[in-house]
Amino acid sequence: MKLNSYNSSYGDIAAAIEALKQLLGDKLVTNEIVRKQHGGGEVTYHKGQAPDGVAFAKSTEQVSEIVKICAKFNVPIIPYGAGSSLEGHVNALFGGISVDLSEMTEIVALHSEDLDVTVQAGLTRQDLNVYLRDTGLFFPIDPGAEATLAGMAATRASGTNAVRYGTMRENVINMTVVMPDGEIIKTGGRARKSSAGYDLARLMIGSEGTLGIITELTIRLYGIPEKILSAVCSFENTQKACEAVIMTIQSGIPIARIEFLDALQIKACNQYSKLDLKVKPTLFLEFHGSDVGCDEQVDMFKYIADEFGSDDFVAASTLEDRNKLWEARHNAYWAACDLAPGTSHLSTDVCVPISNFAQCVTETSQDILDSGLIGPIVGHAGDGNFHVLLSFDANSDADNKKVKHFLDRLAKRAQSYEGTCTGEHGIGIGKAKYMRAEHGKGLDIMFAVKQAIDPQNIMNPGKIFYG
Amino acid sequence: MKLNSYNSSYGDIAAAIEALKQLLGDKLVTNEIVRKQHGGGEVTYHKGQAPDGVAFAKSTEQVSEIVKICAKFNVPIIPYGAGSSLEGHVNALFGGISVDLSEMTEIVALHSEDLDVTVQAGLTRQDLNVYLRDTGLFFPIDPGAEATLAGMAATRASGTNAVRYGTMRENVINMTVVMPDGEIIKTGGRARKSSAGYDLARLMIGSEGTLGIITELTIRLYGIPEKILSAVCSFENTQKACEAVIMTIQSGIPIARIEFLDALQIKACNQYSKLDLKVKPTLFLEFHGSDVGCDEQVDMFKYIADEFGSDDFVAASTLEDRNKLWEARHNAYWAACDLAPGTSHLSTDVCVPISNFAQCVTETSQDILDSGLIGPIVGHAGDGNFHVLLSFDANSDADNKKVKHFLDRLAKRAQSYEGTCTGEHGIGIGKAKYMRAEHGKGLDIMFAVKQAIDPQNIMNPGKIFYG
Repeated sequence: MKLNSYNSSYGDIAAAIEALKQLLGDKLVTNEIVRKQHGGGEVTYHKGQAPDGVAFAKSTEQVSEIVKICAKFNVPIIPYGAGSSLEGHVNALFGGISVDLSEMTEIVALHSEDLDVTVQAGLTRQDLNVYLRDTGLFFPIDPGAEATLAGMAATRASGTNAVRYGTMRENVINMTVVMPDGEIIKTGGRARKSSAGYDLARLMIGSEGTLGIITELTIRLYGIPEKILSAVCSFENTQKACEAVIMTIQSGIPIARIEFLDALQIKACNQYSKLDLKVKPTLFLEFHGSDVGCDEQVDMFKYIADEFGSDDFVAASTLEDRNKLWEARHNAYWAACDLAPGTSHLSTDVCVPISNFAQCVTETSQDILDSGLIGPIVGHAGDGNFHVLLSFDANSDADNKKVKHFLDRLAKRAQSYEGTCTGEHGIGIGKAKYMRAEHGKGLDIMFAVKQAIDPQNIMNPGKIFYG
Repeated sequence: MKLNSYNSSYGDIAAAIEALKQLLGDKLVTNEIVRKQHGGGEVTYHKGQAPDGVAFAKSTEQVSEIVKICAKFNVPIIPYGAGSSLEGHVNALFGGISVDLSEMTEIVALHSEDLDVTVQAGLTRQDLNVYLRDTGLFFPIDPGAEATLAGMAATRASGTNAVRYGTMRENVINMTVVMPDGEIIKTGGRARKSSAGYDLARLMIGSEGTLGIITELTIRLYGIPEKILSAVCSFENTQKACEAVIMTIQSGIPIARIEFLDALQIKACNQYSKLDLKVKPTLFLEFHGSDVGCDEQVDMFKYIADEFGSDDFVAASTLEDRNKLWEARHNAYWAACDLAPGTSHLSTDVCVPISNFAQCVTETSQDILDSGLIGPIVGHAGDGNFHVLLSFDANSDADNKKVKHFLDRLAKRAQSYEGTCTGEHGIGIGKAKYMRAEHGKGLDIMFAVKQAIDPQNIMNPGKIFYG
């Protein structure tokens, strides 16, 4: 059977919208602007596909009611958080109802003693950290965008801190999920670990809304470190920078962030963020620890950097310098866009074992050159995860073709290095075509799970599986 | 539908055994001693149930052939590693074939640069660490038994180091799994993270052989810390000890082990391991780090212990003292058994959020007293996970009843504290009856997954789901 083809003939959308209007009143919106906003296409290179209606939900129970109506009328449901996903995750391929969770922003319960917090789906990671500011705690996972926490769980997001703190996979303790028939489940309790049956939380994390809608989640928090130090240093080439990364990880330095930026990205950052870094492959670093521990980490890293030929290690000693550095890192995408203003841009990602990172990055750089593309590389080197930020003319067939073929080669290159076609962006519609090569018959197992949990194929249909 | 009842009428076992004999020769064993050994009942309080035959496998491909034969003849398959699981996981409830993986002990590939190793299913954690001894690396997950690594994955095992290094959930990168139809899948690549589709590894981890047979796994390794310090200190009561644990975790001390032993367990350890510890609620601790970092952790912890009224903090300064201390901890079960020699023993576990740990342990201690049972308590306090080591007369109906009711109250107590009926032992047949209370409708989702992946219900039938 062709994957994803088990149901793409849906029911009476007009009747579903009518029923949803009765439930939600003016929180069921059908005007074109709002529908278009919810169909993707604004932040990604995938053309948007608007849903037929947008349902703004306020509670788990309301999401359940919405889902029951959609199930009854057999219409697609597309969960929507901040709309910041990059691979067409919110596109309404078959129309249907976008369920917008961005108004569900409550902090349900903070358990400082257990270092966890339960929040509603639509809270963003930034707003959570603002809320936590006076508690001495923080939530470390930081994808580039102002994503919602449920959206981050749904795409198994990570970011710059993952090398130390893990990804959403490691940091979700429990979730409330509305299943495709409207049933509300909890994936577990609040204990740090459990051996009681299948790991439903991990099954939902990364399922991209194809198995249910995450409406609440309990996530791990961490104490804000006593000391935070940032640093930057450059290397003669990518290989040397990567060897320094591997040695850092092997030495057990509990580094919080170790980010790789290639020479072109440094050039872009220098221009955009008014820095004067050497235009060479560079590592941005952050160390978390006690006063003594942090200094020790810095000393150990300095020694490693020196061993691999770096001679310009600079620690940012003031908060201002540190912020400037990391602001530049966080603005890498915009800096890259500025290299070719007026064009279209896209960010893609792959991830490989760190022993293959240098080789994969070096080959990718050469490929970008050979293709005549503009594409700086920036990566979470400690995880083997990197991004290419491409600028191109979306109105040029030649450019689109070049980009398409480059993305194809990149995904396959990563897979050939025992890696994955995406480390943190997810599959959506953009990378479904690489799933068979990556998972072989494992894809059929995923598909069997999908069919078992969502027999009507109403949960975000057309994503992950290639139809 | 009653869970687990979708198929318990199996096919022609004699024909299956005949076909397996043709495939395996004398590696298909049907003599009664070997069958009984493989039916559980030796290490657990569950009465053993022998399979009809035991197939000793040598490779993934051979496991696949075995499974295909069992699927063809519609007979149950029970994966078997070291047989050290505690909740009747290897019992052959419906007869069938025990697939023994203990001869699959190869190290397939060591990737020091990536801090990972790929091993065959039947390698034990101890043998892995012996192999790694000269590499400077180690694998930290340490359940009490000499378990196989695939068995540890199948039951989502953990142990004393989980507070720092996580459980099998966090430490498996990739697995090769033989599915119920004999197909061989890999759950992913070797990258540290991936957002490419459903998390098949995490789905298999903790599935207790009900979804497939894990034949190979790639797991994370860690650098052996520069310095390891052990320590012990006692507290006036359980509450104080637990408050010290919470404060330690909250302070971000990266403690490697923080084990709670109640007064009775200390008494048992004193007797069994010739120690002279104060007979009071006690913490056993281990600190991993650099030279400076380790000392700093000890200083911080000392301060906390002092704050909660402990006045006898002692660091084990020599390797000999350290080994003596941790040997005593590892022998806690045997020490507990020695409290009532000649009786039967069982170890059970539950896990709660650490803020509820003291209350749950205190109530459990009282319950043990009230029940007239002998049952010291020992726990991985940093995770909120604890064990009760019960001694009782298995030939006495009154004792069996007492134990049964106590276990029941314990599981429900943990659940009432937002915890789980098992933190690391798993469900097997012993705790299936608590699954509905713990997971509600989530159990139906698990069951839907089970049916989708194993429509014949031949993979370890009768486990996890209550029939």
